[in-house]
Amino acid sequence: MKLYEQLANSIALSIQEGVLCKGDKLPSVRQASSSRNISPSTVFQAYYLLEARGLITARERSGYFVTGGAGGIPASPEPILVKHEELTQVDVSELVFEVLESTRMKKVVPLGSAFPSPLLFPLSNLARTMASSIQVMDPWSSVDNLSPGDADLRRQIALRYMIDGLHVPSDEIVITNGALEALNLCLMAVTRPGDTVLIESPTFYAALQSIERIGLKAVEVPSHPKDGVDLDAMEWALERHKPKACWLMTNFQNPLGSLLGNEKKKALVELLTQHQVPLIEDDVYGELYFGDKRPMPAKAFDTDGLVMHCSSFSKCLAPGYRVGWVAPGRYSKIIERLKLTTTLSASAPAQLALGKYLQKGGYDKHLRNLRHTLLVNQIKFIDAIQRYFPEGTRLTKPQGGYFLWVKLPDAVNALDVHRVALANGISIAPGPIFSAQRGFTDYMRLNYGHIWNENIESSLEKLGKIVSDLMR
Amino acid sequence: MKLYEQLANSIALSIQEGVLCKGDKLPSVRQASSSRNISPSTVFQAYYLLEARGLITARERSGYFVTGGAGGIPASPEPILVKHEELTQVDVSELVFEVLESTRMKKVVPLGSAFPSPLLFPLSNLARTMASSIQVMDPWSSVDNLSPGDADLRRQIALRYMIDGLHVPSDEIVITNGALEALNLCLMAVTRPGDTVLIESPTFYAALQSIERIGLKAVEVPSHPKDGVDLDAMEWALERHKPKACWLMTNFQNPLGSLLGNEKKKALVELLTQHQVPLIEDDVYGELYFGDKRPMPAKAFDTDGLVMHCSSFSKCLAPGYRVGWVAPGRYSKIIERLKLTTTLSASAPAQLALGKYLQKGGYDKHLRNLRHTLLVNQIKFIDAIQRYFPEGTRLTKPQGGYFLWVKLPDAVNALDVHRVALANGISIAPGPIFSAQRGFTDYMRLNYGHIWNENIESSLEKLGKIVSDLMR
Repeated sequence: MKLYEQLANSIALSIQEGVLCKGDKLPSVRQASSSRNISPSTVFQAYYLLEARGLITARERSGYFVTGGAGGIPASPEPILVKHEELTQVDVSELVFEVLESTRMKKVVPLGSAFPSPLLFPLSNLARTMASSIQVMDPWSSVDNLSPGDADLRRQIALRYMIDGLHVPSDEIVITNGALEALNLCLMAVTRPGDTVLIESPTFYAALQSIERIGLKAVEVPSHPKDGVDLDAMEWALERHKPKACWLMTNFQNPLGSLLGNEKKKALVELLTQHQVPLIEDDVYGELYFGDKRPMPAKAFDTDGLVMHCSSFSKCLAPGYRVGWVAPGRYSKIIERLKLTTTLSASAPAQLALGKYLQKGGYDKHLRNLRHTLLVNQIKFIDAIQRYFPEGTRLTKPQGGYFLWVKLPDAVNALDVHRVALANGISIAPGPIFSAQRGFTDYMRLNYGHIWNENIESSLEKLGKIVSDLMR
Repeated sequence: MKLYEQLANSIALSIQEGVLCKGDKLPSVRQASSSRNISPSTVFQAYYLLEARGLITARERSGYFVTGGAGGIPASPEPILVKHEELTQVDVSELVFEVLESTRMKKVVPLGSAFPSPLLFPLSNLARTMASSIQVMDPWSSVDNLSPGDADLRRQIALRYMIDGLHVPSDEIVITNGALEALNLCLMAVTRPGDTVLIESPTFYAALQSIERIGLKAVEVPSHPKDGVDLDAMEWALERHKPKACWLMTNFQNPLGSLLGNEKKKALVELLTQHQVPLIEDDVYGELYFGDKRPMPAKAFDTDGLVMHCSSFSKCLAPGYRVGWVAPGRYSKIIERLKLTTTLSASAPAQLALGKYLQKGGYDKHLRNLRHTLLVNQIKFIDAIQRYFPEGTRLTKPQGGYFLWVKLPDAVNALDVHRVALANGISIAPGPIFSAQRGFTDYMRLNYGHIWNENIESSLEKLGKIVSDLMR
């Protein structure tokens, strides 16, 4: 990252964290230059960037001021403590499909979408890489790319882990059709119908759908919006329900945005290892951190081969290419075979193109831009929500990813918001789709991973009005 | 198809059918020209083509003679009548994986492979289409291509069915990661663990693996090498075992190469409709016919929406792209949702490229070449087997596809052949991988979908010797 980008990002983080609030004056260029020991032109570049992104504004002869921000935002919502003494037969698919359909409609502002805007990705660069790699593709790659997948791509993925300080042998990696297939294969590998699976609450609805489809039972363990799953509750559930697997997100959880610290991840893995319960770790958002470095996955603390670590390029680089992977520890062979007998392999052209793209370099630069854009977007979303939503609204302030988890003021039902908003051309993701018990009725998830513009802002204004109207 | 290609193909068919035998003299150019009312130069072109392909040879001043062929080949093997009164717990995966691994090894002559040679496909043409389509790909296609799949591609597939005289609305079609995923989704849609599924015997091993993985039971109905599944046995099994689904191949079955006639397909669909049992129809080889026109799928005779018709481009056009589809009749919505919750969608670049390729034209020309090549290969394989294999060997003579089903002389075990052949650098597919009961121990499947050359011929010679040696 260039020096001015570093400075811009660190100022944006301060705004997000509420250290810098709306109206605050930034240090003068001379001050900043001297205190940070960088050239005045670097400071200027950083300020220009932040001004272009709409986070600060220059007032003539006075300096730079924060235009909006997250100061004084409502506190994080508290976790909802679900009753975890009961097992749940999951039956949430119908509602989820209804909501998903709505996010796919053209002309609907996709605040309920699960994907960031494809315009944030280097699609033309990727397309050029694919165009050149496909034309020299070895005809036999259709055989070579059968599960476990393209050797170069697997090596590039292993290399990235190595650079982040995590040892994942490329031999362990199985390429899949996106992380969703990886997660499903993991679940199939370690459960049989009727078994119990431990999930967090709220949880990514795909976990609920998979559990429902396979005929498993779910134990929901409450999760905190800030630091994730409650380990005491998990221990209790492990002892009481003897689950066959635990499926959760450790980094920037969907929908909460929560992040487990390293100590907590370590404790989580130890607890599961003690009970010999495999962890299906969904880490698709791990690369989208706003801080200094990638948060480790729980996989980093695994000593027993019990962590099945899943990720993909769909949220960071290549939506629609459908290339994900799993590093399944001791279950590597089982997963490879499950993949072979269910979908055989991932698409060869997509595997080749991604392997080539990673090798060429440029991915890290893209990720830095993407992270910064998401951070700036989050600040603007929070700022807009503060302005337009009624008192009593509370929300999270995640350290990465592109989701806000919004608690609606009392008595407002998120399904009502969903219906009225959709009639007004806006989608949201209502809380009940993230719960086997259709709880979280007064929560919604908003996606800030779309390009900020007036249309988004006016949609948030409309949404705030809809919530206000529903309070009456 | 050009006139001379038509003539060449019809002569090749006569050789394959044994109407023309080794040493037979072809009609003179003048005769052929006059009897068929075509120009002498067209006849010359056809004869040149057949000569270049090694099926006929010119003797100076004498005319053209058949060099090899299928005359006097051993009769088709009879179907093996498995005991169908017993349900079978399927447990064949380990053996299948062992065999599959062997076909993937470099330097092994892949007579046991399930795929035709990728060199038979227009890969560079496809690559150019992909290169140009990916560079103008709408960024939002990652959303638009979510299940049920790319609209253009689905329309092109529906159009091909229409041209073949079959009405399949594009709305019914769900794009999948190859036919294998389509078949698995169908099975998941209509069964629950513990249910019984009706399959044919011998059967494609992937059906066995899926049944094993999902925890279903199999009823095997005997299938005839020539015209497929035994309907009397099927009726009996339907009444006795009340299966929840029937999974089979109607056109050029793997491994038999059998083809159900239209009347039989109609009777099959009627029988299943009477029992309200959905048919999972695997039709991946339907386009690889040697005759005049595409054999209809059973889907053509469905009046009740009970036929779930699966196919793909993997065997005809684009191996490794992993694009297949299913037209699931009344189960369309269920399948679309299963696809969404298991792997979300097929790879967008592959869908776009194939849609574009089909639209551009050229697919039918490629298919004509491919069919002719496969027909010529089959003749050469049969010719070589006659020369090199011991007396008592019998084999099928399919009307399409690229598999021969070979019955070994008594007392020779196909698993022994598999092991010895592999030690000699040749893979075969031994009979037991096609049976839940590991039957067909004296059968093997050979793939003639690779480019004919001396290496293939000498491998067949070696294989014949291995079989002879094992007789002693």
